[in-house]
Amino acid sequence: MDFQSVFPVWKKLSAMQQKQILGSLILKNVKKGTLIHNGNTDCTGLLLIKSGQLRAYILSDEGREITIYRLFDMDMCLFSASCMLNSIQFEISIEAEKDSDLWVIPAEIYKNIMKESASIANYTNELMASRFSDVMWLIEQIMWKSLDKRVAAFLLEESSIEGTDKLSITHEIIANHLGTHREVITRMLRYFQSEGMVKLSRGAVIILEKEKLEKLQHA
Amino acid sequence: MDFQSVFPVWKKLSAMQQKQILGSLILKNVKKGTLIHNGNTDCTGLLLIKSGQLRAYILSDEGREITIYRLFDMDMCLFSASCMLNSIQFEISIEAEKDSDLWVIPAEIYKNIMKESASIANYTNELMASRFSDVMWLIEQIMWKSLDKRVAAFLLEESSIEGTDKLSITHEIIANHLGTHREVITRMLRYFQSEGMVKLSRGAVIILEKEKLEKLQHA
Repeated sequence: MDFQSVFPVWKKLSAMQQKQILGSLILKNVKKGTLIHNGNTDCTGLLLIKSGQLRAYILSDEGREITIYRLFDMDMCLFSASCMLNSIQFEISIEAEKDSDLWVIPAEIYKNIMKESASIANYTNELMASRFSDVMWLIEQIMWKSLDKRVAAFLLEESSIEGTDKLSITHEIIANHLGTHREVITRMLRYFQSEGMVKLSRGAVIILEKEKLEKLQHA
Repeated sequence: MDFQSVFPVWKKLSAMQQKQILGSLILKNVKKGTLIHNGNTDCTGLLLIKSGQLRAYILSDEGREITIYRLFDMDMCLFSASCMLNSIQFEISIEAEKDSDLWVIPAEIYKNIMKESASIANYTNELMASRFSDVMWLIEQIMWKSLDKRVAAFLLEESSIEGTDKLSITHEIIANHLGTHREVITRMLRYFQSEGMVKLSRGAVIILEKEKLEKLQHA
């Protein structure tokens, strides 16, 4: 699998632009837990995920977190190059949730090509619109869904990503995804356990009744 | 004041593109309270506000509202043409908060020009990034700020927009801006009144101590 076959608008680039990208492209291996992009303090560049999993989140002044979106194989990470766009006035952090192989296009190179290529600029528009949709979905979740439904949805999402009903995840990590406190998650999971939906053990949540969680999620 | 002098990237358009826009441009007058764009059911086109004020908001299944951002003179409204971008997977509603004069560029015309013009596509990128920043700010408010601070911030914003300390606004409207219930706002405003920050009367909130509200907002 090479970059050219995965980058969505490769064929719409001129030979010169293709050369510029290939000449500056870096393949980067990052370990699970690595902070790839830290607010506005750096401008890593555009990331194309060859394999792995990234999480974009924001931080409160008190250090609380909430996951904004997650990215998987073949996804493109735009906000790691947020310096490209003047109008981006927020700070996002991006970390590797799994060991990941990332293609990095330096922000300067991409920005210059975007300036001259309508195709790339329009592709970038669509990318941003996708992330915008993720964020609007999140607002709806936060505003109109109670936390029990959000926890149920998160456990089901994790189970689907990992392909298992035994989730190796701490209450702290779930709290950081959902923007709440560990204690609140612990209480909620204990309630789920008392209802027979999950079983809790050290550092793991085992899903026992997927149907009940699904029903709760959509209630 | 004519469209050409206000549209930000006018000079970067070709003579042909300028002609296309001018040939299809509509100047629309809408009354306060008019629903200009209703979720995904229509694709009004790009709006440039000649004068007036718009509010973009989302609706829950139960009919609750929350304001996503507001637009003023010379602002451009992108999501009234959300059909232009395939990746927009959310429904936004836009209403006139004041009588407004709007220039409307039909979505089809703008989309075709954006396809061929890197300048317009990049301009659209910056527009979307601005709205993205508004939405990220909103998430931070919802997640990390208590409602008393959000109400204080909203009253100060309204006072600044209207240029007066006497706000003709109902508790219901404030609730719809902030995504909460009328009763919750009434309770909060009564608390503000008991602290001497505001005075409540029928259909109006009078700000008595701006400094106290500012202090609360940033506490």
